[in-house]
Amino acid sequence: MKYRLEYDTLGEVKVPVDKYWGAQTQRSLDNFRIGPEASMPIDLIRAYGYVKKAAAYTNHQLGVLSSEKRDLIAAVCDEIIRGELDEHFPLVVWQTGSGTQTNMNVNEVISNRAHVLKGNVLGKRIPFLHPNDDVNKSQSSNDTFPTAMHIAAYIKLVNLTIPSIEFLRNIFDDQAKAMNDVIKIGRTHLMDATPLSLGQEFSGYVSQLDHALKAIQNSLPHLSEIAMGGTAVGTGLNAPANYAEIVADYVSKFTGLSFRSAGNKFEAMASHDAFVEAHGALKQTAVSLLKMANDIRLMASGPRGGIGELILPANEPGSSIMPGKVNPTQVEALSMVCVQLMGNDTTITIAGSSGQFELNVFKPLIIYNFLESAQLLGDACVSFAKNCIEGLRPDKARIKVHLDNSLMLITALNTHIGYEKSAEIARKAYVENKSLRESALELGYVSQEEFDEWVDPKKMIDPEKNHN
Amino acid sequence: MKYRLEYDTLGEVKVPVDKYWGAQTQRSLDNFRIGPEASMPIDLIRAYGYVKKAAAYTNHQLGVLSSEKRDLIAAVCDEIIRGELDEHFPLVVWQTGSGTQTNMNVNEVISNRAHVLKGNVLGKRIPFLHPNDDVNKSQSSNDTFPTAMHIAAYIKLVNLTIPSIEFLRNIFDDQAKAMNDVIKIGRTHLMDATPLSLGQEFSGYVSQLDHALKAIQNSLPHLSEIAMGGTAVGTGLNAPANYAEIVADYVSKFTGLSFRSAGNKFEAMASHDAFVEAHGALKQTAVSLLKMANDIRLMASGPRGGIGELILPANEPGSSIMPGKVNPTQVEALSMVCVQLMGNDTTITIAGSSGQFELNVFKPLIIYNFLESAQLLGDACVSFAKNCIEGLRPDKARIKVHLDNSLMLITALNTHIGYEKSAEIARKAYVENKSLRESALELGYVSQEEFDEWVDPKKMIDPEKNHN
Amino acid sequence: MKYRLEYDTLGEVKVPVDKYWGAQTQRSLDNFRIGPEASMPIDLIRAYGYVKKAAAYTNHQLGVLSSEKRDLIAAVCDEIIRGELDEHFPLVVWQTGSGTQTNMNVNEVISNRAHVLKGNVLGKRIPFLHPNDDVNKSQSSNDTFPTAMHIAAYIKLVNLTIPSIEFLRNIFDDQAKAMNDVIKIGRTHLMDATPLSLGQEFSGYVSQLDHALKAIQNSLPHLSEIAMGGTAVGTGLNAPANYAEIVADYVSKFTGLSFRSAGNKFEAMASHDAFVEAHGALKQTAVSLLKMANDIRLMASGPRGGIGELILPANEPGSSIMPGKVNPTQVEALSMVCVQLMGNDTTITIAGSSGQFELNVFKPLIIYNFLESAQLLGDACVSFAKNCIEGLRPDKARIKVHLDNSLMLITALNTHIGYEKSAEIARKAYVENKSLRESALELGYVSQEEFDEWVDPKKMIDPEKNHN
Amino acid sequence: MKYRLEYDTLGEVKVPVDKYWGAQTQRSLDNFRIGPEASMPIDLIRAYGYVKKAAAYTNHQLGVLSSEKRDLIAAVCDEIIRGELDEHFPLVVWQTGSGTQTNMNVNEVISNRAHVLKGNVLGKRIPFLHPNDDVNKSQSSNDTFPTAMHIAAYIKLVNLTIPSIEFLRNIFDDQAKAMNDVIKIGRTHLMDATPLSLGQEFSGYVSQLDHALKAIQNSLPHLSEIAMGGTAVGTGLNAPANYAEIVADYVSKFTGLSFRSAGNKFEAMASHDAFVEAHGALKQTAVSLLKMANDIRLMASGPRGGIGELILPANEPGSSIMPGKVNPTQVEALSMVCVQLMGNDTTITIAGSSGQFELNVFKPLIIYNFLESAQLLGDACVSFAKNCIEGLRPDKARIKVHLDNSLMLITALNTHIGYEKSAEIARKAYVENKSLRESALELGYVSQEEFDEWVDPKKMIDPEKNHN
Repeated sequence: MKYRLEYDTLGEVKVPVDKYWGAQTQRSLDNFRIGPEASMPIDLIRAYGYVKKAAAYTNHQLGVLSSEKRDLIAAVCDEIIRGELDEHFPLVVWQTGSGTQTNMNVNEVISNRAHVLKGNVLGKRIPFLHPNDDVNKSQSSNDTFPTAMHIAAYIKLVNLTIPSIEFLRNIFDDQAKAMNDVIKIGRTHLMDATPLSLGQEFSGYVSQLDHALKAIQNSLPHLSEIAMGGTAVGTGLNAPANYAEIVADYVSKFTGLSFRSAGNKFEAMASHDAFVEAHGALKQTAVSLLKMANDIRLMASGPRGGIGELILPANEPGSSIMPGKVNPTQVEALSMVCVQLMGNDTTITIAGSSGQFELNVFKPLIIYNFLESAQLLGDACVSFAKNCIEGLRPDKARIKVHLDNSLMLITALNTHIGYEKSAEIARKAYVENKSLRESALELGYVSQEEFDEWVDPKKMIDPEKNHN
Repeated sequence: MKYRLEYDTLGEVKVPVDKYWGAQTQRSLDNFRIGPEASMPIDLIRAYGYVKKAAAYTNHQLGVLSSEKRDLIAAVCDEIIRGELDEHFPLVVWQTGSGTQTNMNVNEVISNRAHVLKGNVLGKRIPFLHPNDDVNKSQSSNDTFPTAMHIAAYIKLVNLTIPSIEFLRNIFDDQAKAMNDVIKIGRTHLMDATPLSLGQEFSGYVSQLDHALKAIQNSLPHLSEIAMGGTAVGTGLNAPANYAEIVADYVSKFTGLSFRSAGNKFEAMASHDAFVEAHGALKQTAVSLLKMANDIRLMASGPRGGIGELILPANEPGSSIMPGKVNPTQVEALSMVCVQLMGNDTTITIAGSSGQFELNVFKPLIIYNFLESAQLLGDACVSFAKNCIEGLRPDKARIKVHLDNSLMLITALNTHIGYEKSAEIARKAYVENKSLRESALELGYVSQEEFDEWVDPKKMIDPEKNHN
Repeated sequence: MKYRLEYDTLGEVKVPVDKYWGAQTQRSLDNFRIGPEASMPIDLIRAYGYVKKAAAYTNHQLGVLSSEKRDLIAAVCDEIIRGELDEHFPLVVWQTGSGTQTNMNVNEVISNRAHVLKGNVLGKRIPFLHPNDDVNKSQSSNDTFPTAMHIAAYIKLVNLTIPSIEFLRNIFDDQAKAMNDVIKIGRTHLMDATPLSLGQEFSGYVSQLDHALKAIQNSLPHLSEIAMGGTAVGTGLNAPANYAEIVADYVSKFTGLSFRSAGNKFEAMASHDAFVEAHGALKQTAVSLLKMANDIRLMASGPRGGIGELILPANEPGSSIMPGKVNPTQVEALSMVCVQLMGNDTTITIAGSSGQFELNVFKPLIIYNFLESAQLLGDACVSFAKNCIEGLRPDKARIKVHLDNSLMLITALNTHIGYEKSAEIARKAYVENKSLRESALELGYVSQEEFDEWVDPKKMIDPEKNHN
Repeated sequence: MKYRLEYDTLGEVKVPVDKYWGAQTQRSLDNFRIGPEASMPIDLIRAYGYVKKAAAYTNHQLGVLSSEKRDLIAAVCDEIIRGELDEHFPLVVWQTGSGTQTNMNVNEVISNRAHVLKGNVLGKRIPFLHPNDDVNKSQSSNDTFPTAMHIAAYIKLVNLTIPSIEFLRNIFDDQAKAMNDVIKIGRTHLMDATPLSLGQEFSGYVSQLDHALKAIQNSLPHLSEIAMGGTAVGTGLNAPANYAEIVADYVSKFTGLSFRSAGNKFEAMASHDAFVEAHGALKQTAVSLLKMANDIRLMASGPRGGIGELILPANEPGSSIMPGKVNPTQVEALSMVCVQLMGNDTTITIAGSSGQFELNVFKPLIIYNFLESAQLLGDACVSFAKNCIEGLRPDKARIKVHLDNSLMLITALNTHIGYEKSAEIARKAYVENKSLRESALELGYVSQEEFDEWVDPKKMIDPEKNHN
């Protein structure tokens, strides 16, 4: 590989000749060979594009940066935002915990790319934009990195995760309505219980997702608070007056989303409670989804030796050895995603609690896990909705067999003949392998007409009709 | 021990002669010898007092229970609520996952205690109130147990946890104001950084707690939804029409808090996302508090070999072997509580995701962990506030030494002479063990007057003054 | 309540007149009102009995404690070990993180109880044994508390947890043998798969528990290392030469178990990796057990609308509203225990990583969670074994129906006619709701004789016979 | 893009013309658009190379595969192992939980690549090797995928993780020896305590890592057990007699490591306790390392406002805004890795407990997290060792100041004048801001000669000398 020389306050460093990064990025590359390259999420880098552009506009507006410098910075930022410079961000998550090296990576790329945009050759002459004094003006890693974290997370939630959950929620809702009249055996403790309709069961999932969406929405205001303007420790040293509010406006304008300057910059830099909170809501969603996934899997089990009340779409051959097998593969993919989120929540919890004084130095770890969760959750909801829930069909014949055989229909007799006699009927039916009706009539606790009147699954699932 | 005979649908059981519980409670006691006795939280039992009383009133109002039965049930419930019958609830958390055995424990105690209140002898004659047909009328374990969970959790949060966090928050706020003028060295990466005031630092804690309180408040609406009226599987079988809404009103009336009937009973019984959500907020609070605790511990370290900027109240001799030692014991107690909550969150997360079909059978586990967390967090906040934060004093002399020695005051020169020259001054001062001022003047980058004008910690902490 | 005055180096304190504890215990009681009283595990207190007795013997043997003092200390320690002084240990887990206050509680109780044993009145005259200079001689909280932790944990594992897991393992093994000939449908992805025997399935559980037991055994050597002799920071200051090894011998002698002096005292006091390791093994066991519990629950689901291949013992009425219901209550209790252990593992992990310099100050938290896990796991294994696994019966008729209907028996044809033709047969049978045999013959890929020869579940489960 | 047609038992699929994968791989690509492409770890794919090669050799040896087929399969496997076919494995982790689609990806690539190796054109004519009947012969996803998991994990641990931890351990050991005579203040509760040497402190880290390495070693035997030969559900259906043992020998031979056939195949496929166990050991290592990292960070804090006893190598400019700052960046990277492992442990724990009957369908999730942990932990140990620990230097002057000022040297007087008088001396010194010596002499409890004889840090750190 061919190299050019770059330097920083510690001296010279060799950098690949065709890359825009500078000395500090290269030092990080050399010093942190941990895991695969370029693991710092690209969404974070792109969010940094908004940060630097907004800072440049604000600096100019407040009279500390020329319009030429502003426009140059903005031009490169737009390239970053559009993903055109991705290859120039090679750093890993496992670097300095403030993300300083990534901030400098951004500063250096902007400086060097602008140098080229101005018609210069990379590595010849001193760039017009100084990475620290110009690109990083009125900023610190300590306020820009968390701001980029908030922007990246907020965009991901609003553009991907939330709509994807809503998409799944709506498909569940469609199915709930479509299957509203399919009466089936209920199950508590995984044991036969009193009946309900498939639509009622699915309505529970819709309600879970509605609550999950509400919880995610509740976490957005905290995420919308950005640290910009706090600079090194939250006091705003080296930033002009009014900088924080103006830069938040620019960030909002450029992203098209509503960000605001954090009311307390000390909190915004020293803690990442906003991520603990928002990821808690994602984790809650994962908890909800895992329950649904497990239900679907159980209902679709079989086709002959299981419960078999739902028929899954057959998207692929299920087994490399067992011919003709259909497996709940979408359920499994979703389940794995949910469990991944639970682990990521532990990570973010511990990381979130580990700030010290003016800084939490688990920033890259937090955003890495957060974005993974938000992406996987969103993607998995869409995949599950399209490739599984949408195509689900009830096996009505089997559902009816289970319902008709259920001993727990007996519960409807409680209010007529009491719990104990009802239990006697159920036990007799079970032990003698009879129907409830036979057992009830043999014991003489109800007449034939009463039994048929009272033990009617249709009435049992309707709160308006089920009590007499 | 002396016994009497009780029976249920499976037959006879021997029960201690002086206890109000019946056959099913005794079976549970015999079959689940897991961990210490009576581990089912007493707050849950007392919440059950409200549940059964509200059900009795509703059943009467809807015409399915006599006023005599209603009043008898209510009389015993009041005893339960007042804690007068605690010894009659011996069951453990590690029982059936629906809490059925605890529901029956409550039903049996009400039946037997009412029997005695009516002047009968325990174990003689059939009680006037049947545990299932009267006390449990229009109910199931599957809706009463989660309702009791919600009531117990809500009461604990509103009466203990939230006010305790607010108490601590206010003490932090008082200290933040009291120490607003104490300028100190900032620290990022645990390394010397630009200055801020102790008040600013503490204001970050206040902001963290304000956000935490908001998150807890956000979780209350979900917790206020109760499952009563769903009965066995959510359909409301065996409950009269309008039961769910009326019973929620009675629960609200008797507790003095605002509960409402869950919009979707299937969700309310099959999932416990409300607890996942609310505990997530408690965990977020723990995350915040652990950060603060660690800061206090670090600032109080020493007294001579540490940072030593804060002086802890000496509440007890610190060491059994080292005479005269003062330790951050309140910090440690709080830290342990915070970490316990993080583990409890894992437990509640997994348990919350483990519902199947119409029921989640990790109910006792969830409420056990939730109430432990809510109690410990509340208690620890009060203890920490009273015994630690309130009595904290800054060691102003030491704070001044650290501030004056700090090389990071150099940052104020960035906007005047640029990052690189500033770095040169700082490095020279460090290597030659000199003051910044000496180093700056020797290098000749600033005049004496400029240095004194620009490098002024008072200006550096004030966003209005710190940029020129 | 009546009080007497006690004092420590900070001054006078009022103590209940009938309790043996002294000033420092009382200060802790007053300063740490967090959670229920006396939450510090009593097993830890009793382990402290061995610690103090062994220290007294060692101090005497090394010439720094008189035989009279040794014998007095030992006499009280024996009372502590026998559980006769439990009420004198009122402190909570949520105290100083070194457990110093509990160490002083022990020191004070020994001093005061010995005072009474010598015929004195509590609170009158200076006790013969000084809590620090005599009872705590050659010791610190920093080495005695972790030693008591190790002793308590080791005893619990060896006396309760391990034999309880072995008990369950053996019952599983008995059932595996008893059900060795019950051929059933296999299930992968919860879908019908090729057959195996119930005995084979249960043999997997036995193997899991064998591996779990091995993992627990692997963790014992680390747990057997004790910190005694390290005193304040691991250097052994104020302990006589050879103290560490001799005191370990006495601990071994008094407990009847094999403890040894930690090779590195700095590690033994500053970290609790031994607990992280041992609890990791308990957690692994919980992971294994949860899988088994879920299998049993699934196989026992029904009785009519589920899988229904196993019949659970009916230990209690299952439902307060559904008469005649039998639920997998032991499965549920065990499952809750397993999930509790997973949360406790998170707690111990975080706590274990939080040591600083010469001390980890999450000691009470770690032992509290560890002992809860070890106790619950042991108890739950016994309860599950006795009340569930021992009484399990296969429903052979239902098992045969599932097996005979299974489409996955087709797999046996792969080696004869290839995967693709086999898949065609299975799909046709599924779509046309026919038997495999019918489908195979209709397609003409095999003859009647070949089908019956090749598709024989008995051969399919036996590795010696299943390939031709 | 240009496509060719491939087919499987569900019909035709379009596949990119230049890729070796087939229909099932393509279906998976289309159906599981979750997260970034090709997230299935490449180490798992390469391990599959060993699996398929060993199976082919075994099948040939047992007479069910021709030598031509064996050699063709082996030739492609060698290419896979050497990483030459990486681009043909595009699937994600979030697919079917058995990894069937990745198994089929491997089978298809081998079939198609062999087709080309034999001189054919991709997509023309039926390949000589059938993906199921030849490449997957005597195998199932259910035994090959876990086998590949075990191989990949074992190789990673043995070749990377363990030697990397040992490398760090040895550097710590070198430093422990080099700094053996540097006596410093000890710290408990983060407060000044009795002295020890820096070497002693570091020896604790060495001991922690020795125990961690032992724990990892303890987990290897379980990991060395492979499931091959179990085929679909553990019974070995469709595999020849003796297959399991022979294939294990081939795996050992080809990898150069010692694998053996799992004693119980049902356990080996239905559970992944071996990963729970091994990752538990990695997590324990992370717990240990986080403690060390925190110590180093604390000791290196400053340089002027912190503890400042260690001087970190300056690998890069620390701050984008604060010139001349040196930060503990390697500590931070390592800390983030440790916390990531703690979260991954939660993931693996939950996933590990979620098997059902004959299969655990969280396989891709488990290996994804396991390999991430093993890689990051290994890499981070090397980075930390080389870039941080190796270059650490004690600041002896500052260490001496802390030591000399310490009030806790008073502890050495306990055995001479008792705890209470010692406490009085320490308190007086603290309150009056004097030296211990002054305070002791003023109080008259010891003579000047006694003080100097007894209070000697050198003696206090040596167990042989520190008691008189």
